[in-house]
Amino acid sequence: MDENQKEILKVSIFKHLDSGALKKISAGASSSMHSKGKILFIHGDEAQRFYFIKSGWVKLFRETLDGAQAIVDILPKGYIFGETSIFEDSIYPYSAEVVEPSEIISFSLKNLKSEIAENNQLALSMLSAMARYRRQQDQEIEHRSIQNAPQRLGCFLLRLANQDEVGVVKIHLPYDKTLIASRLGMQPETFSRALSKLKAQTGIRVQGATIEMDSLDSLVRYSCSACSSEFPCKDLHAAE
Amino acid sequence: MDENQKEILKVSIFKHLDSGALKKISAGASSSMHSKGKILFIHGDEAQRFYFIKSGWVKLFRETLDGAQAIVDILPKGYIFGETSIFEDSIYPYSAEVVEPSEIISFSLKNLKSEIAENNQLALSMLSAMARYRRQQDQEIEHRSIQNAPQRLGCFLLRLANQDEVGVVKIHLPYDKTLIASRLGMQPETFSRALSKLKAQTGIRVQGATIEMDSLDSLVRYSCSACSSEFPCKDLHAAE
Repeated sequence: MDENQKEILKVSIFKHLDSGALKKISAGASSSMHSKGKILFIHGDEAQRFYFIKSGWVKLFRETLDGAQAIVDILPKGYIFGETSIFEDSIYPYSAEVVEPSEIISFSLKNLKSEIAENNQLALSMLSAMARYRRQQDQEIEHRSIQNAPQRLGCFLLRLANQDEVGVVKIHLPYDKTLIASRLGMQPETFSRALSKLKAQTGIRVQGATIEMDSLDSLVRYSCSACSSEFPCKDLHAAE
Repeated sequence: MDENQKEILKVSIFKHLDSGALKKISAGASSSMHSKGKILFIHGDEAQRFYFIKSGWVKLFRETLDGAQAIVDILPKGYIFGETSIFEDSIYPYSAEVVEPSEIISFSLKNLKSEIAENNQLALSMLSAMARYRRQQDQEIEHRSIQNAPQRLGCFLLRLANQDEVGVVKIHLPYDKTLIASRLGMQPETFSRALSKLKAQTGIRVQGATIEMDSLDSLVRYSCSACSSEFPCKDLHAAE
């Protein structure tokens, strides 16, 4: 088994593949290092590859005619993206930009498409992943309707924390605050105000990119009361 | 072919089913009339049936611990719901309430699940539907980040209009304004202000539940400039 095959087995939808299927999907795969700012593809481009993040962070986004940017997701290592274009007339439904230096493996969409057409187990795994993602998006829309900005920020922090941990909790912000603000659909000013209000309401302590608190309780009380899911959340991260 | 089979063939994911598969999925199907306010199932309930709307409207929603309600979708006739629970440990991911007198056919989820496990064509159709829904949800999240309230309302109206029509356009609001407000994630006051602003900006005329305008142009200019998709939209309605 080569390096690319080992990596892609980490993705939940691929983890039950047998060696024949794995070989087909990874044929022609290639790994590259990319620096911050690299655009991998643009919304509307013809889609030929899907991507696996071996290390780093990738932002998925779309742009309006006015030039405003909406973030679809910001993905860490271990995630794939671009794969749903096989159901979208082979058109990428968003743009993808590297936001931290990243090692990324690209795979052929054609291989994936033909394997899914033959391999019902793979189609079923993909359906499960899509259903999970759908529930997460429903929750995101719910939060934008019901939670205020400090509650949304609190929820974002809770997802980064080890939710089973007891005692003092330290959370490290994974990327810069401007990017977190846009991930949460907030203007930078709104984000700053939300952070101040969250500090006042829950007693969290902020030092640069590190956030500390005596326990998660006050954050849970503050954010999760305005959410239809129960803490701890089943899905800590978006997608796949 | 019985009545229930004829109805379910209207749903895109089922339209290529052969008669054997159709028979399996519709075994034990049953049709009922429901009045406004009827709750079909509650978020978190064990899921045994999925539903097809033959006539009427159904609201999918979730409630927070605080008692606030977030609308997941409001579906017209021709749509199914509850079907994704087969990928969610057989738990309904939302609650469903009838919001206008409706005729609804319920089908066995167990039959659907076993058919999908054997029928790769059906699994692929369902994947396409889920990818389409995913793109719509991404767009909804984008709109909540970028569009202001009057622009979101304008977009909602554009989806109701016949987008190819030229000349004077009449749009009939499909359900009451309070429900439209919650569908758009707005407080009723925000909705009223948004409607006034939209009238001032685009010259639409509102008479009760009917909205009239000389053409769609000003609405398109006003709303679609803050959107990453091009008018006319490919997907006019949410889901399936």
